[in-house]
Amino acid sequence: MSGTMGERFRRKAISVAQARLLLEPHAVPLSSEKVVLWQAPGRRLARTIYAPHAMPHFARSGMDGFAVYSEDTVEADSVAVQLTVVETIPCGTVPNRRLGRGEAARIMTGAMLPEGADAVIMLEAVDEDQVDRKSYITVKRYAPRGMNVSWPGTEVSEGQELIKAGVRISTGETALLAAFGYERVEVIRKPKVAVFATGSELLHVGDSLQPGKVRNSNLHMLVAQIETAGGEPIVYGNIADQAQEAKSRLETALREADVVLTSGGVSVGDFDIMAELIGDSEGKLFDKIMMRPGSPTSAALWENKLLIALSGNPGACFVGFELLVRPVLMGMQGAVASPVPALEAVMHQDFDKVNAFERYVRAKVWLEGGKVYTAPLEQDKSSMMISIKEAEGLIIVPPGTQLEAGELVRVIPLKGWGTGDAAF
Amino acid sequence: MSGTMGERFRRKAISVAQARLLLEPHAVPLSSEKVVLWQAPGRRLARTIYAPHAMPHFARSGMDGFAVYSEDTVEADSVAVQLTVVETIPCGTVPNRRLGRGEAARIMTGAMLPEGADAVIMLEAVDEDQVDRKSYITVKRYAPRGMNVSWPGTEVSEGQELIKAGVRISTGETALLAAFGYERVEVIRKPKVAVFATGSELLHVGDSLQPGKVRNSNLHMLVAQIETAGGEPIVYGNIADQAQEAKSRLETALREADVVLTSGGVSVGDFDIMAELIGDSEGKLFDKIMMRPGSPTSAALWENKLLIALSGNPGACFVGFELLVRPVLMGMQGAVASPVPALEAVMHQDFDKVNAFERYVRAKVWLEGGKVYTAPLEQDKSSMMISIKEAEGLIIVPPGTQLEAGELVRVIPLKGWGTGDAAF
Repeated sequence: MSGTMGERFRRKAISVAQARLLLEPHAVPLSSEKVVLWQAPGRRLARTIYAPHAMPHFARSGMDGFAVYSEDTVEADSVAVQLTVVETIPCGTVPNRRLGRGEAARIMTGAMLPEGADAVIMLEAVDEDQVDRKSYITVKRYAPRGMNVSWPGTEVSEGQELIKAGVRISTGETALLAAFGYERVEVIRKPKVAVFATGSELLHVGDSLQPGKVRNSNLHMLVAQIETAGGEPIVYGNIADQAQEAKSRLETALREADVVLTSGGVSVGDFDIMAELIGDSEGKLFDKIMMRPGSPTSAALWENKLLIALSGNPGACFVGFELLVRPVLMGMQGAVASPVPALEAVMHQDFDKVNAFERYVRAKVWLEGGKVYTAPLEQDKSSMMISIKEAEGLIIVPPGTQLEAGELVRVIPLKGWGTGDAAF
Repeated sequence: MSGTMGERFRRKAISVAQARLLLEPHAVPLSSEKVVLWQAPGRRLARTIYAPHAMPHFARSGMDGFAVYSEDTVEADSVAVQLTVVETIPCGTVPNRRLGRGEAARIMTGAMLPEGADAVIMLEAVDEDQVDRKSYITVKRYAPRGMNVSWPGTEVSEGQELIKAGVRISTGETALLAAFGYERVEVIRKPKVAVFATGSELLHVGDSLQPGKVRNSNLHMLVAQIETAGGEPIVYGNIADQAQEAKSRLETALREADVVLTSGGVSVGDFDIMAELIGDSEGKLFDKIMMRPGSPTSAALWENKLLIALSGNPGACFVGFELLVRPVLMGMQGAVASPVPALEAVMHQDFDKVNAFERYVRAKVWLEGGKVYTAPLEQDKSSMMISIKEAEGLIIVPPGTQLEAGELVRVIPLKGWGTGDAAF
């Protein structure tokens, strides 16, 4: 056994939690930028936003109907009350005058109540009459104060916290930002993620197959993962096996990007360029993790930036990204910390493969009858990619443990179960 | 009561299911287009894809180690076996020659097995020696046939179905498409969705507040919803109250877009332009739905395209989109039908508001201890938008029903619970 090889075998394995702790200090929120509101969905807010004014900012009718003095209708349950209609208030207009006692104003949903009015009676609940070109309504039921009225600030009061910094701007946040006049929104800039693959066996996606070679799928997979994590991928392509050249290309990327990812070359083989570069570097954070797949996943701090070297096996590359890279990108976007990213699910069947390391098994996750179920997928070998598309979660199998059907296990969710494929 | 008003009140209310049935025939898959693989994530596949070749397409080593004849090692458990190392096979190369009996080849993870070899022994499990500049290994354990070898087609056989038409291309699909050489992918084109708002009370987002007026938040909200549903929003802005002008603008949009959405103007008020245009049109599909919020939600087939008129109340507009428009956009992208878009969850608390119509209540949804829980949000009035951002689902409250804590209820999921905010 060669000396070099011996060194490599002496890598010190740490836990996934320890690896995350080593990465965390370097995953701090990036600078912010302003984008127009149309571009804001999917981005994360740079600063907590407080309501610049109350909502609604005027007393608003919740119905098409008649604005009245509630007190004028106190007897209406027993004796019909007649009120004079003095004006019509469409949405977006300001009432012409204060409502007098005995008066009513025809008002639209969303329109502004006239001063004095404190209730709105729905259209269908009154009778309308014309006498001498004057309009009257007959009210037959008491309209308590506030009926069908939204008072100023009922929904949001001035200065109230609207959206916290770090929150991903989705549909509801977009509506709020629009309603409060945020034509431009300050968001955290997208982390730039440089991506390299290593390995002379890699063909381009457009190449014909050759014996012994495979097409480079990890670059594409990582780009898709980076995009779902809110990052901006920069594809550098393949990296050479030659150490000095590889180092210089990585350093260039580290100057341009916020994080550099590589896939492959982290193992103990003779051509494992990333193992060599990270293993020897001063900035090494770790080069072995007690997990399956992806135990040789490595990371270093170079040029004060994170270089994360993922395994070249598709399954291990995928899992390494989800466990270690996604949280880094989330942290760089100021995402609110989630102390327990895993959920609990009921094992649907036994899982009897015991491993010395913590194992992350690709799994189906589904909701049925108010319960959360999970089942490991077939073809979960780290070299296999076919089951990645089916994986809705990663079951965490503790070291040296079997899992039994019916048992509650921890699962890292990978896909949402909402808004997915629901057509008719 | 005026005649016009009377007419309007005589709208015929149908169920949500009936409304969907009326929309469904017009939500057929659109034409396809080719995009480069980098642009494919998030799009939906136009045709089912079958594997153009097996994966792996050669016998592949799963380990760094030595390729051997399994039969040569049969005695190794009792008597150490010595084999001659005849070559080194890095990844991406073709072995120089067929392995002879008594021979071994140093091989890398992912590299091609030489002919004859049928097992790989991991590096750490052998002793290496040099004698007279020749390399030998000593094997001390039986290596059964197939050990650490992926045979051709083990993962995917030629012609096997890879990804079904209509599936949304995410991480795993992207990796597969790359591995099988799909540099360009045929996807369904994005549905173009024209969006209008109605209402003279609407200010632009950048405008200062004015009494009686509100900023136009529905346009922005709908754009965010359309984008999450895979559509391409085309913002037309505000539509006038004048019928002929409104009609002509809608018709222009219907020629340019696949669907036209409007928000507001569907109610029974005097200025409800959409109610007037749809109510009178030949192509009317429905103009009242037995649901809360959003009962006046209307739809028509104009110029052989769908015009869907949502309520102007933010909550009702939001719900109307999720229940009726999202499935239309999914159908147009060829999404696989989901007969039960709702999931079952355990009510966390009582809900005692009874309604004559089916009610869709914005709710929290969470997973805890292997169970799915839901609880209605405060501020669920249809005019309120503040709780839209918190809504993870819509609880379906059947007509005339109260819900009790502990009861199993149906919830339409709105957000995923995976890959959301999981930082460290």
